Formats: sequence, C-alpha cells, structure tokens
Amino acid sequence: MTDRPLGRPRATGPSTSGLSTHDDILAASARLFCSVGFGGTSTYAIAREAGISQASMYHYFEGKHAILLELLMRTVHPSVEFATALLDRREEPAESRLWALCAYDVTLLVSGAENTGSLYLLPELGDERFASFHAERDRLQGVYRQLVGACDGVAPQDADLMARLVFGLVESVILSRRSEAENPEFDGAAGDISGAIADAALRILGLPADRITQARAPR
Amino acid sequence: MTDRPLGRPRATGPSTSGLSTHDDILAASARLFCSVGFGGTSTYAIAREAGISQASMYHYFEGKHAILLELLMRTVHPSVEFATALLDRREEPAESRLWALCAYDVTLLVSGAENTGSLYLLPELGDERFASFHAERDRLQGVYRQLVGACDGVAPQDADLMARLVFGLVESVILSRRSEAENPEFDGAAGDISGAIADAALRILGLPADRITQARAPR
Repeated sequence: MTDRPLGRPRATGPSTSGLSTHDDILAASARLFCSVGFGGTSTYAIAREAGISQASMYHYFEGKHAILLELLMRTVHPSVEFATALLDRREEPAESRLWALCAYDVTLLVSGAENTGSLYLLPELGDERFASFHAERDRLQGVYRQLVGACDGVAPQDADLMARLVFGLVESVILSRRSEAENPEFDGAAGDISGAIADAALRILGLPADRITQARAPR
Repeated sequence: MTDRPLGRPRATGPSTSGLSTHDDILAASARLFCSVGFGGTSTYAIAREAGISQASMYHYFEGKHAILLELLMRTVHPSVEFATALLDRREEPAESRLWALCAYDVTLLVSGAENTGSLYLLPELGDERFASFHAERDRLQGVYRQLVGACDGVAPQDADLMARLVFGLVESVILSRRSEAENPEFDGAAGDISGAIADAALRILGLPADRITQARAPR
C-alpha cells in the first residue's frame, strides 16, 4: 500500500511515520480496509503494514473489529463534541450553528488520508460490536434534528425530513470523494466544499440568501 | 439469507421466485454482496443461494465480477436512459426536467430488495473491469450538469458545484437507506422521499418556491 519498507520490527526503533504505534496501526488499517477491503484484510497484514509484530498489534487492539470501530468513531465523535457544544450557545441563531456544524462535519469527512466514511456501508456494521458507533451517529443526527427544528421557517412537521436531507447532503461527500478518486478529472467543483454544502443545507431549509450570508459570518 | 431452501437443483424444475435463472442469480448475489460482502462471497455460495449448480451459473455469468457489474449497471442505466430522453425535451423548462430526473433516480436507488447502491463504495470498484459502470455514472452526472446549467439563475461558474451537490443529495439515499436498516425507529422521515429530494435539489439551486411548485407539476 505504501512505498516504505514493510515488516520493520518496531522493537528496534521508533515509528518512521511520526505517529504513535496506536495511530500507526489505525493508519495502516485504514489504508488496507479502503483498498483491499475489511473482509479481505488479516490482522497479519495490518501488523505488516504498520511495521510491527502481530503480538504488539494485539497489545493495542483486541482485533480488527476493534480497529474498525475506532476508525468509525473518529469520523463522528469530533462532530458530536462540536455539535453538543453548539447546542448550548443559545444566544446564536440556530441557522448559524447549523451552518457551522455542516461545515465542520464535511471538513472532518473529507480530511484524513483515507475515505474512512466509505466504511459506513460495510455489511459487517450490522454486528453488535458496532452498536456504539451507530449510537454516536444517531446522537449526531439528533443534534442536526434539533438545530434544523429551531431554524426560522421550518415547520415542526417538516423538521424530521429536512434534517434527514441535510444530514444526507453532508454525508454525500463520502460518495463524491470516492467518485473523484476514480475519476480525478471530474473535480471542477473543488474549492471550499464544506462552505458550499453548509450554504446548500440552509437553502434546503428555505432560508433566504441574506440570512445565509449572515449565518456564514465568522463568529 | 432467505428462508427458502437452498441448493435446490434448478434442473429439476422452474425457479420458485418467478424470475428467470439470470435474474435469480442477480437477486441471490445482491443478497449475499449486501449481507456477507463482495469479497466474502464465493461463486459456490451464489449458486447455492440461487438454487442452481455452479456450472449453470457460469453459463450465465463469467464470474462474480460480471455479476457485480450488472448489478451496478442496473442502479444507473435506467436513469441514464431517462435522463437522455429528458435532454431532448427542450420545450420543457430545465428545472421541470431536473426535478423529474432527481425523483426518478431516487426512486430507482431506493427500489429493489437490496441496497445495491451501497456497493459503490467497494474497494474492488477501482478494477478496470468496472470501467463501463464508472463511464455510465459519469454520463448520468453529465446530464445533471447540463440540466443544472440550463436552470434559470444558476451562474455558469457555479454549475459544476451545484450539479455536484444535487447529484450528492440524490445518491445520499444510499447512505440513509443503510442507516434505516440499522435503525428502523429513525424513519420519521419516510413518505415521498423522491419528491422531497427533487424539491430540495431545486432549492439548492436557489429557485423560488413557486417555480418549484411548477416544476413538480405532472407533465
């Protein structure tokens, strides 16, 4: 997956990546899960890619399910933290906070060397070992629901549907990031995708252009 | 995957599903790819699930890549046909045609017993054997781009980005369909998702409410 030497025994020296061994294992696993697939990746291959022994890998993680769970959590947990803090800032209009949440969440999903959000669609995620990930993602979706419902002009009976559309638009960067990897010439739409999606989210809610400009203002 | 008996020799009688053997193989493969995973599914398992011998499976398909390719094509090809026909209907406003395309495409992606769109994120899709699928999806995206660019009020320099957002919103049903499978109590937003997404797509483009109502009118 990489050009650096594989299988280097970590016992003889520090990581060449500058990451902790824990994070080396996560990075190596993300590369393999996103290129070979989760099912096709062995713990042996992970240890080799991370440049450590299998025994030391098991020192950090119970197995590849535990690694996948942590990779998944890293795609939602920071957004949940950010979202929860936003809920308390009642002095700010809901649309400003929703704009900030969309932009933050998109930035998180497009960052990182691998498109780990693409692992959301793995059949393995039905396993109960991933329940805490689903709960965290539901929590995030719950904050979207609250902020959408608090925006001016969103009728209470429409809030569930509107929140679903906004959440879907945000997560759609997972699919478009994948398409661009297949098809690098289709990126006439690069630029500030996080801001563009946050703007589009507020347009979905029917907010007029001047309110969107205000919501976007740095706070 | 199903409760019906597996391994029934097709040679002794017709399909119990009412489908052709070709479609039985596709349906069986979709169930397995979406539950066990593509990598973890053998051609033996597919034949067993379809109730035929492996030899007759190879009569219909070269192997599981060919099956996956056909499953993928079925998630885009009907929309490409529909979209291409729309391009010729120049007497209709672009926004009416875009609305119809979004609604058609969403309906296609949420239909079918399995969420085959979830296979878009398989690492295997980087293989050149799937080039015709990527080309078909690019063609579809190209029609979205043309229709978006022809809508009133969309500045030429914004058309690529707007088309990307609309296409992402449409495909986001793949992700939300998956979430609902994990979490059936979160479906307060059921109802007519195809119409809701088509409306939201036009709101993303900044079209006013009355124009969206017109675009939605049956033609």
